[in-house]
Amino acid sequence: MARKGRMLYEGKAKRVYETDAPDLCIVEYKDDATAFNGAKRGVIAGKGAVNNRMSNVFFRVLEDHNVATHFVEELSERETLVRRVAIVPLEVVVRNLAAGSMAKRLGLAEGLELARPIVEFYYKNDALGDPLITDDHAEILGLATPADLAAIRQEALRVNDVLRPFLAERGVLLVDFKLEFGRDSAGRLLLADEISPDTCRFWDVKTRERLDKDRFRRDLGGVEAAYQEMWRRVSEVEAR
Amino acid sequence: MARKGRMLYEGKAKRVYETDAPDLCIVEYKDDATAFNGAKRGVIAGKGAVNNRMSNVFFRVLEDHNVATHFVEELSERETLVRRVAIVPLEVVVRNLAAGSMAKRLGLAEGLELARPIVEFYYKNDALGDPLITDDHAEILGLATPADLAAIRQEALRVNDVLRPFLAERGVLLVDFKLEFGRDSAGRLLLADEISPDTCRFWDVKTRERLDKDRFRRDLGGVEAAYQEMWRRVSEVEAR
Repeated sequence: MARKGRMLYEGKAKRVYETDAPDLCIVEYKDDATAFNGAKRGVIAGKGAVNNRMSNVFFRVLEDHNVATHFVEELSERETLVRRVAIVPLEVVVRNLAAGSMAKRLGLAEGLELARPIVEFYYKNDALGDPLITDDHAEILGLATPADLAAIRQEALRVNDVLRPFLAERGVLLVDFKLEFGRDSAGRLLLADEISPDTCRFWDVKTRERLDKDRFRRDLGGVEAAYQEMWRRVSEVEAR
Repeated sequence: MARKGRMLYEGKAKRVYETDAPDLCIVEYKDDATAFNGAKRGVIAGKGAVNNRMSNVFFRVLEDHNVATHFVEELSERETLVRRVAIVPLEVVVRNLAAGSMAKRLGLAEGLELARPIVEFYYKNDALGDPLITDDHAEILGLATPADLAAIRQEALRVNDVLRPFLAERGVLLVDFKLEFGRDSAGRLLLADEISPDTCRFWDVKTRERLDKDRFRRDLGGVEAAYQEMWRRVSEVEAR
């Protein structure tokens, strides 16, 4: 098993460690939760374990559909071995229904189904509050070339095409989600970061009950239970 | 001369009237000034006359370069006969240098020259504060088709290609500007609205002194003088 070396990075929800292998890292998921660019803070008991294991289920499903991800091996409840990448400083958001900041920005009802899934790019920059940007902005800021953006957009929509039916079978509506991509030492674009109730909007298909971090953001209660319920749905069917 | 009929619309800086001809309107420019989506209000003496006449100079120059505009005939110091159009609800911003909201949003120094001119679309909606949007948003909101957006983007860059050297000859750096487009009854896309110190950032080429509405927005003083100086530069050379 890979040995945890020096801590490379500590984020809001994860720590990343070096390993003996220069191309591999260990990600460790925390229970810490933040929202609104760090303005709201808390702890969601058991979140780290749910997010680690759920992300890994999704990464494995995506790899099965030829989406290249950073996933290598789950090491423990909260730790995963991943390929080391340089993160492209974009938050890549895919939306199937209007919700959250998009609904507010455009004056759309939350839950409005979009005519087609769309991809948005946000500049990953806490000091600026992760602003929505256009392709031209990304290029001018040197965040990504037009070719990078086209590749990322296409890959993000492929992730949606895989996860949306996977979740629908489990009674979950995939409203929207945030992805991050990185490049490994060979320059290959890999899906990185996590895919979890922290980074997705998951609604129960029938009741439209929120099963994601909006319960924390909006003080809806039942936060821990929602994470566990999502894990139950994703893991039970996986074990079939 | 066309006769002013019923008022069709009163905006922050202009009134629009019907005429006897169904395809023609009269625009009347006011001295009223607003900024920050109406949060700041005032009067800039003489602004209406400067903006009317300056817009018309620019529209004539653009027509000479085969940019289709709504301009028909200047009727008086403050009034112009224009083709009636249905406005596409987009604020189309062309930027040569970072300034204003873009500099703030992306953390760029005001005055940074961009690698190439870029076009941004804002959703023309006061209640939402005219948010920046992506092409996908414009399409989903039904504001414009991808073909419309491509045509508008191309035309906006053509306007820049004409006005930037025209102004440079007059010692004025065209930092950025906002355009609005409309469709006439035949469906033809026309450049509409105005092109003036209200809608452009004009900087003196040498001193970088602001010669535009930023003097009002930012309480820099000398607001009226800046509008008159811009009119002097645009009109004097035109008369050569």
